[in-house]
Amino acid sequence: MGLRLIPKEEAFFDMFKAQAANVVVGARHLKDLLEDYSDVDQKRMQIEKIESQGDEIAHKIIEKLNTTFITPMDREDIHALSSALDDILDFINASAQRLQLYGVKTIKPDAKELANIILRAAEETEALTGNMKNLKDIKNMKARWIEVNRLENEGDKVSRHAIADLFSNYTDDPIEVIKWKELYEHLETAIDKCEDAANIIEAVALKNA
Amino acid sequence: MGLRLIPKEEAFFDMFKAQAANVVVGARHLKDLLEDYSDVDQKRMQIEKIESQGDEIAHKIIEKLNTTFITPMDREDIHALSSALDDILDFINASAQRLQLYGVKTIKPDAKELANIILRAAEETEALTGNMKNLKDIKNMKARWIEVNRLENEGDKVSRHAIADLFSNYTDDPIEVIKWKELYEHLETAIDKCEDAANIIEAVALKNA
Amino acid sequence: MGLRLIPKEEAFFDMFKAQAANVVVGARHLKDLLEDYSDVDQKRMQIEKIESQGDEIAHKIIEKLNTTFITPMDREDIHALSSALDDILDFINASAQRLQLYGVKTIKPDAKELANIILRAAEETEALTGNMKNLKDIKNMKARWIEVNRLENEGDKVSRHAIADLFSNYTDDPIEVIKWKELYEHLETAIDKCEDAANIIEAVALKNA
Repeated sequence: MGLRLIPKEEAFFDMFKAQAANVVVGARHLKDLLEDYSDVDQKRMQIEKIESQGDEIAHKIIEKLNTTFITPMDREDIHALSSALDDILDFINASAQRLQLYGVKTIKPDAKELANIILRAAEETEALTGNMKNLKDIKNMKARWIEVNRLENEGDKVSRHAIADLFSNYTDDPIEVIKWKELYEHLETAIDKCEDAANIIEAVALKNA
Repeated sequence: MGLRLIPKEEAFFDMFKAQAANVVVGARHLKDLLEDYSDVDQKRMQIEKIESQGDEIAHKIIEKLNTTFITPMDREDIHALSSALDDILDFINASAQRLQLYGVKTIKPDAKELANIILRAAEETEALTGNMKNLKDIKNMKARWIEVNRLENEGDKVSRHAIADLFSNYTDDPIEVIKWKELYEHLETAIDKCEDAANIIEAVALKNA
Repeated sequence: MGLRLIPKEEAFFDMFKAQAANVVVGARHLKDLLEDYSDVDQKRMQIEKIESQGDEIAHKIIEKLNTTFITPMDREDIHALSSALDDILDFINASAQRLQLYGVKTIKPDAKELANIILRAAEETEALTGNMKNLKDIKNMKARWIEVNRLENEGDKVSRHAIADLFSNYTDDPIEVIKWKELYEHLETAIDKCEDAANIIEAVALKNA
């Protein structure tokens, strides 16, 4: 194992871009699964595979971090951004898994809406990682941070409404409440993690502006 | 954006004091809401507003951290303390929200007791932030750390008793168990986060003593 | 309080070894409790005592970190490893507590299997901490990392199967679902935390190899 003295700085940015692109693929598969709830096992296993690929990219980033002497951004920010991107996919995968574990037969409309918001937030996050290499287009980045924030608020509203609905309309079916409360919370957390990733990119950009 | 070369060191301490004072305001509103459970929507929205103000203070602290070259305490401690203070208010707000989401009609006595403990722990934490600027009064601080610890243990005991009570007395009302188990856990976590904040202040004080 | 200028580097490794050995003791007591579910209160209080001892060791490690100038491994790694080891015991203790809080009368076989996996993962983790002082035996360490990973996957599978079983077979007993879903999740998280600890040791070893 050699110590890289002259870092290829771009490598980190390319790896983050690849990690975020993989998150978008996972988000798209989750949206497809919820909108067309057939071949569930096969689709769920595909999402699990995407999540494993995400783990590999995250592992490579940390490996590179541990062998790089001078990094293009603070070490703790590299760690935090890679973790946040990884977390998005973890919650996407955990949501898909739970559909099977809980024996869910039909998908509630609010869950489809949340999956759609996850995809849009993931796309904004991917675009932001693409802007990290050269920070010329801060104005464009600002628009995306605002949009991710807006999507997080929207997700929060949808998820609150959905959970309140469970407690109003399913008091005679507590198992349904248990299942869907957790599913909604997992979907919402995936959106929160997009916002975390966008916030870290914002902090990095402002430090280096 | 200018780089501040000669830091106004006090600024961080003043900001932590303001953040902790805002936590106390939130804790007082939660206690009032649980003790006088009327005008729930209005009171809940007031707590949400206080939580937003907390977010703004936390954002300013991180912004200041990112533009300050020499800080009066370790950068990761500034980050950790601001996060812990922010978390207290997040769990206070999340508890208030859930009362509405779950359609809670009456407040159980154990919840009132927990809200009272949150307020007392928040007040101790605020006093501790006020002692950070000059560390003369370590003896007084020590008494407060011990008190926050004691309050955390007390909260733990109340919450355990309350949850055991749910599982003994509400076996025929699982929805009630779901609601109140989570409410008690959220209230207890708010107290845990006070202890986290106090522990960080303790570590900072001991490092600089 | 004096500043230690010439660090006894070994001290940190010895403390981690002691912390991990205490985790193994806790894991063994949990396994015993689940396999022979009698004298529950006494056994549960014994686990709580072991958890308190773990807190004390963790506290001493952080205290030593705050007064040591030059550390044998990165400060954030010391912090992260001590936290991960502490977390294992927290989840072991939280699982034991919940048996009492929830009034659990008999132990399900999947829970016994998970407790057995926790113990095996804890033993691997303890062995890994013993290898940190001198990193001669990386090949042996590699075998242990792979084993902890395998145990985490096994735990994941057992826990998934157990939760799916709850939702298939206990739809008429939602309280049983609430109790055991959380118990399985806590047991699985204890295994996850072993993997976290092993991963941190891996990263430290590779950085210093």
